[in-house]
Amino acid sequence: MNEINTISILGSGNVATQLAKGLKLEGARISHIYSRNQITGKELALQVNAEFAEEISQLPKEQLILICTPDDQISSVLSDIPLETPVAYTSGSVELSSLTQRSHLGVFYPLQTFTKGREINLFEIPFFIEATNTDFAQQLFNLAWKVSRKVYFADSQKRSELHLAAVWINNFTNHLVYISDKYLQEKQLSIEFLQPLLKETIQKLDQISAYEAQTGPARRGDLTIVKKHLEKLHGAEREIYRLLSENIIKTYSIDDKL
Amino acid sequence: MNEINTISILGSGNVATQLAKGLKLEGARISHIYSRNQITGKELALQVNAEFAEEISQLPKEQLILICTPDDQISSVLSDIPLETPVAYTSGSVELSSLTQRSHLGVFYPLQTFTKGREINLFEIPFFIEATNTDFAQQLFNLAWKVSRKVYFADSQKRSELHLAAVWINNFTNHLVYISDKYLQEKQLSIEFLQPLLKETIQKLDQISAYEAQTGPARRGDLTIVKKHLEKLHGAEREIYRLLSENIIKTYSIDDKL
Repeated sequence: MNEINTISILGSGNVATQLAKGLKLEGARISHIYSRNQITGKELALQVNAEFAEEISQLPKEQLILICTPDDQISSVLSDIPLETPVAYTSGSVELSSLTQRSHLGVFYPLQTFTKGREINLFEIPFFIEATNTDFAQQLFNLAWKVSRKVYFADSQKRSELHLAAVWINNFTNHLVYISDKYLQEKQLSIEFLQPLLKETIQKLDQISAYEAQTGPARRGDLTIVKKHLEKLHGAEREIYRLLSENIIKTYSIDDKL
Repeated sequence: MNEINTISILGSGNVATQLAKGLKLEGARISHIYSRNQITGKELALQVNAEFAEEISQLPKEQLILICTPDDQISSVLSDIPLETPVAYTSGSVELSSLTQRSHLGVFYPLQTFTKGREINLFEIPFFIEATNTDFAQQLFNLAWKVSRKVYFADSQKRSELHLAAVWINNFTNHLVYISDKYLQEKQLSIEFLQPLLKETIQKLDQISAYEAQTGPARRGDLTIVKKHLEKLHGAEREIYRLLSENIIKTYSIDDKL
């Protein structure tokens, strides 16, 4: 079984950038970058000392292409890559079986949120690997192992379950912070006041479970305050507040209805 | 205007414990602890070298009593304290005007979540102060200033707005982590996989706003994945997922309805 040492990266967004830099740092060679966005693509190529390919067809056919595009472009991009070329993609939710089969098709999914301009230490990031070809899966595992000590095999179903959990953990918590931020701005207050609370909310979960950590009016069954808060809200936010409070009350078996 | 140096604390829960320890550490003297729970009350008294009072009536009448009980006990506890005794309470949502007026009644609200057994550095915690008597407000401000460099005056309305924001930031984000945790357990997966994501979700908000930080299927308007996730959920959690996704889509002006 050959080790993967030299790869091409397809894409130049946040995932492509972090993986390209991280892999290069740990000794992999990024030979080519292809991206529809020539500006960010050429910039990334420069950063990792790779060649910028003007067309997908210019990427070397015998080495791994790591597809780091948005989910809905993976299928069409794959159709431009020769069937004998080994390919892996970084999506949490695209099922392996939903794509046209080829001898070397795999998944290389880093479970993290990547932000432009923010360097992430990949070492603690879980990577989930899948491939129909066992040898190829092991090669992808070893590639991920270059940058992380948390590498796991996971089939498409497990990966999609992790992805759904990540939506709650990242996308939705972030949206709650946004709702809070917007509300405070309307009241001429600043989210700055809430930063220590936000950090402690997450840090305490190192020690205790979210079930144990729950506090607040709904947890105490303090419906007077819940109702007072509902009166201050309207529209979707009021409905979200109501549903979350009801669900907390239900979780802790206080049976009052709002 | 006299400085507040010696105080009694009423309560022995998380807020009482952290404030008693923090204030003592910064040179205040905690002379008495009263608590309905004699076990935790006596334990706290021992920790801060205070006397445990068996009755509220045993607390010194000329010095500040800091009430750290749950919101719904404040009013009844107050009725047991002589009208001339200065009193402050730590609640985010109880309005000053809702309580029986007295010459020295104030609010001493630390905007943080306190957990049993977890010591918090109070120095960065915002404290919000209110009192009908200006001198007393300033005394409470100075008392908070002993332990924190983020002390502000805020009336009951501002404080209740901050408290509502805190419910989103702390109570509801925690509940989303719980939902995610429970879902992963059902799937024989562990929330451990999601810890780096959760931390980065919050840490990136030091650099960018929650509005800018939003990612995920709803943000991209990827309704295929949103629908796939909805199919995996049921009951209240499905409804919460749907509402949050709809609200993200609306926020970023993608007009498709789920």
